[in-house]
Amino acid sequence: MNIHKEKNDRKLHRKAVTLGDAQQALLDRVHQAGTVKIALADAAGYRLAEDIRAREAIPHFRRSGMDGYAIRTADLQQLPVMLEVIEQLPCGTVPTKVITPGTAARIMTGGMVPDGADAVIMLEMTEEAEQAGQPYVQLRKAVPVGANISPIGEEARAQELLLEAGESIGPGQMALLSALGCAEVLVYRKPLVAIVSTGSELLSINDPLEGAKIRNSNIYMLAAQVRACGAEPLFVEHIPDDYPNAESMLYKLLKSDVDMVIATGGVSVGDYDIIADFFLQWEGETLFNKIAMRPGSPTSAGVWNNKLFFGLSGNPAACFIGCELLVRPVLLAIQGERKAADVQAHDAFLAADYNKVNAYPRYVRGIRYFHNGLVYVKQEGMDMSSAMVTLKDANCLMVIPPTKTGIKAGTLVTVIPLAASTL
Amino acid sequence: MNIHKEKNDRKLHRKAVTLGDAQQALLDRVHQAGTVKIALADAAGYRLAEDIRAREAIPHFRRSGMDGYAIRTADLQQLPVMLEVIEQLPCGTVPTKVITPGTAARIMTGGMVPDGADAVIMLEMTEEAEQAGQPYVQLRKAVPVGANISPIGEEARAQELLLEAGESIGPGQMALLSALGCAEVLVYRKPLVAIVSTGSELLSINDPLEGAKIRNSNIYMLAAQVRACGAEPLFVEHIPDDYPNAESMLYKLLKSDVDMVIATGGVSVGDYDIIADFFLQWEGETLFNKIAMRPGSPTSAGVWNNKLFFGLSGNPAACFIGCELLVRPVLLAIQGERKAADVQAHDAFLAADYNKVNAYPRYVRGIRYFHNGLVYVKQEGMDMSSAMVTLKDANCLMVIPPTKTGIKAGTLVTVIPLAASTL
Repeated sequence: MNIHKEKNDRKLHRKAVTLGDAQQALLDRVHQAGTVKIALADAAGYRLAEDIRAREAIPHFRRSGMDGYAIRTADLQQLPVMLEVIEQLPCGTVPTKVITPGTAARIMTGGMVPDGADAVIMLEMTEEAEQAGQPYVQLRKAVPVGANISPIGEEARAQELLLEAGESIGPGQMALLSALGCAEVLVYRKPLVAIVSTGSELLSINDPLEGAKIRNSNIYMLAAQVRACGAEPLFVEHIPDDYPNAESMLYKLLKSDVDMVIATGGVSVGDYDIIADFFLQWEGETLFNKIAMRPGSPTSAGVWNNKLFFGLSGNPAACFIGCELLVRPVLLAIQGERKAADVQAHDAFLAADYNKVNAYPRYVRGIRYFHNGLVYVKQEGMDMSSAMVTLKDANCLMVIPPTKTGIKAGTLVTVIPLAASTL
Repeated sequence: MNIHKEKNDRKLHRKAVTLGDAQQALLDRVHQAGTVKIALADAAGYRLAEDIRAREAIPHFRRSGMDGYAIRTADLQQLPVMLEVIEQLPCGTVPTKVITPGTAARIMTGGMVPDGADAVIMLEMTEEAEQAGQPYVQLRKAVPVGANISPIGEEARAQELLLEAGESIGPGQMALLSALGCAEVLVYRKPLVAIVSTGSELLSINDPLEGAKIRNSNIYMLAAQVRACGAEPLFVEHIPDDYPNAESMLYKLLKSDVDMVIATGGVSVGDYDIIADFFLQWEGETLFNKIAMRPGSPTSAGVWNNKLFFGLSGNPAACFIGCELLVRPVLLAIQGERKAADVQAHDAFLAADYNKVNAYPRYVRGIRYFHNGLVYVKQEGMDMSSAMVTLKDANCLMVIPPTKTGIKAGTLVTVIPLAASTL
């Protein structure tokens, strides 16, 4: 009973760190994931592990921006004018003739502008004609020098840095990498994240409900969150509420080839909080076991042999928020993301009074929306750390600073968009 | 020459429809993708093809929201008070005793509150004690009736509609589906999208640059865009610039088991615009071949045997925008999304003067950002339909209405967030 009480006292009397300090302590311990070379066609959603420079200028030739005629603007001083069409220039064709006074070349969008020409005039401003069996074009309007011509290197100079390691590969990156001829790219491999749950109250999703038991939902939620951060979740069997077995299972996981281990549940001050017990006596270094935030203040994390171990709350909303605020920045950093964890945070107007009193900053699931150029945020449904049904409706977290009186509608508060927001 | 001229005239003199009419014409022809039952663990990112109701109330028992003691508030009228602890209630345990006057039960977060108790008092507000070998708890502060107890059905009533067909399965949906015991879910299968390119100027990404040729980048970009809409891209070999061959290849694709075909390039008024030629003589129904928008006005689409065929511009930015504005709403609708195509659009303040003159609405790649509760949008880099290098930096499209004088900074304009924005 004494040992038991002392352990409970240690679980109760934890020193709370700020969220910022907790995030920094984690980021200080991040080791980037290994890299792998993959085919560009498979690379969407990965993060680059190499800087990418233009090999050649883009464009590497004077490119027509229009379907029309490559002409000499000097020929347009007296209008209308008839020019002899001396060549047809589909895209991909290298001109064989120089545009000399009185001549023009029919050119397509993206085609190489012939020497001698200093503008392209769009087809809609021209009329086809014929003189003595030769094709001509009649022009009625002048265009400035350079019109509809992209000069060499307009988009990028040769050797220009175009993409940086750590950047996520989306449609724009794919366009650029393919244009540069990067048939293979070096990317960070997707971090592998073991997700385990604790708690003897948990049923499998295949089981019927009974008594005081509930189905295990956090591991499925975490798996989707982890995926939204570009990582691969690994479902692990449930950890038993029997300390020696739980301990050996946790060490086995930490020794396996996953990049990190996330446990949900068992971090609180209860007598059956097996993850809190593990943090009290493990061989790893505990980075923090209490954060000055609600919900999820008992959220804990540590390092064992360079591998991060997270103990998230078992309460669905607290678990969700712990993953967004602590696991997500780490997963992005592991994949080379260089931006700060809170780079996406911004201000928004609180749409309704927030009346709950807080000693700690509170991270409340919210709905961000726009109206007439202003950003608003409103609380989404129930704000209990146990509430799970309304998690699906949130698209951000709103940050409520410590307050003894609540916060009035119209006040600016910080919002953090969710990783997997579909709104 | 006459036939050739007539064809060119038909390509030139197209009737422009509005973007809204083009989108509606497409949505009117959408057939939803087939459905498939998959394991919940694999369901993240799919869209539900069935409505989901609560089978039982959530929670299905009176649930403690705290670690502490289940008590009768009537016992707290004189403080401090000592209550006998008659039972330990870890999560998942069904109480065997009723809380009677003078008694309490130790209860964990998520535990089932025993009959007789009408509140839970948090552990931090209590002191353990002992009297005659029996465990007691001392309380010094009153709590209101119902404190820290979630009543049955607080989150959802039995049979309540919780998720609707068409909803995308993210972390919140995963939490709910697993809590409800949906070990398998009925989802729309991912639409399969064939992506083909045209144009004899295109090199493979493995080829060195030469002459006036460029590497094929639109198909990689489109593949990433299509993926961001939950669909599977299918890369198809390049279409030759030889009409009979191109035509037979396009019919072969339309007859294959893909859900739609997207071609990029060859939709304009040029002599070598093979997709425009195809739309002039194919067996399908052309829905539109010109849209009153820039860039991408020659964007075309039609239906052949219930299958949609898109002809997007070959210009990278015009192709990108055509996919966002026309293909994306169709792909979402195929997967059961019920919201309107433009549900995500909202207003933002133009951060700098926009001076280009437009006869048509212009969809300009932009960067949306926030400052002091206001939403701004600025033009991202070069606004040429040929510009590809800066595509990666955009996180929205900004809609510039037709203007003869430009639009002043500070004006509210519509922005459309991109499907695959990583910002």
